[in-house]
Amino acid sequence: MKTWGKMGVALCCVCLLSAFSGDKGQKDEEEKEAANHSYNPKFMQEAIRIAVENVKNGTGGPFGAVVVKDGKVIASSGNTVTPDNDPTAHAEVNAIRKACKALGSFQLTGCEVYTSCEPCPMCLGAIYWARPERVYYACTKEDAADGGFDDSFIYKEIALKEAERSIPFLNQREEGAGEEFRLWKEKEDKVEY
Amino acid sequence: MKTWGKMGVALCCVCLLSAFSGDKGQKDEEEKEAANHSYNPKFMQEAIRIAVENVKNGTGGPFGAVVVKDGKVIASSGNTVTPDNDPTAHAEVNAIRKACKALGSFQLTGCEVYTSCEPCPMCLGAIYWARPERVYYACTKEDAADGGFDDSFIYKEIALKEAERSIPFLNQREEGAGEEFRLWKEKEDKVEY
Repeated sequence: MKTWGKMGVALCCVCLLSAFSGDKGQKDEEEKEAANHSYNPKFMQEAIRIAVENVKNGTGGPFGAVVVKDGKVIASSGNTVTPDNDPTAHAEVNAIRKACKALGSFQLTGCEVYTSCEPCPMCLGAIYWARPERVYYACTKEDAADGGFDDSFIYKEIALKEAERSIPFLNQREEGAGEEFRLWKEKEDKVEY
Repeated sequence: MKTWGKMGVALCCVCLLSAFSGDKGQKDEEEKEAANHSYNPKFMQEAIRIAVENVKNGTGGPFGAVVVKDGKVIASSGNTVTPDNDPTAHAEVNAIRKACKALGSFQLTGCEVYTSCEPCPMCLGAIYWARPERVYYACTKEDAADGGFDDSFIYKEIALKEAERSIPFLNQREEGAGEEFRLWKEKEDKVEY
């Protein structure tokens, strides 16, 4: 009886501990879930602040972006196209690159992107490849067009037939084209993305 | 007369020299023009070779791209998304960034992009921002879809209304939004791109 009694007490302790840690774990998860699913104006204000500062400091175009995970900023950036001589260095692309580096992953699972302006097609594509949970933006692509940026124009070009685009896209299928996909499908140890 | 005679000979020499160098200069320009406006299969074969090697070597996805200026390759790259933990490191984006670095410019004026596969929306956007003369591609986005890549899916998503997209894009205009564009328009020493 004594042994059973001791075992019972021990068992109760284990149960209580797991219940508590279960509660805590669940609470943590719920908090993360809440942080991940609720818009927080302070992150948007930060994205706008970066955009404004970028213009004031002459360090690039008028755009800023922030990547948030579990209610915390994990990366942020302004646009650095001109100082970096990199036409792909938009705020969202920069912030996504930095966030992925911080996470050691090519995916932004469980993350949110806050950006001062509606993403251009390049940034939209980058977002789809990075796969965050959602995107919040302040200004629209019409605001960007009014500010002198091509975003709306590129959106219109995408919808056009290749021959009608201002930059021609020409299909030239050489012998051997497609071999890379055949090898890719066969490859057993490939890292998919 | 002697002096005039010498001057005349000298003048003739100068004229002939300028005529020759003018011809040469014009010929160079014509050659560059021809190189810039004619598809060359060897560059596409190189883009495909890079794509195939990338799979064989396990150094990224099955894509390759080459940037050509004046009939010469100035940059080339495979896709390096997985080794670099960078979802934006598609072959075209990598090659554009390298080419811009090589030229010391954020524009690919007078360049052509050869890519093993039709650019995804991100790469199409990057191309529009870099502004090369034209793009040649071998495989289509349907080949990419068959190979397991989301390109077609992202093209379809762009055309959808924001609320219907698989990654929600939500407009949250905070106070102060747009200030960056107002400052940008006013800025006299801005570097436009």
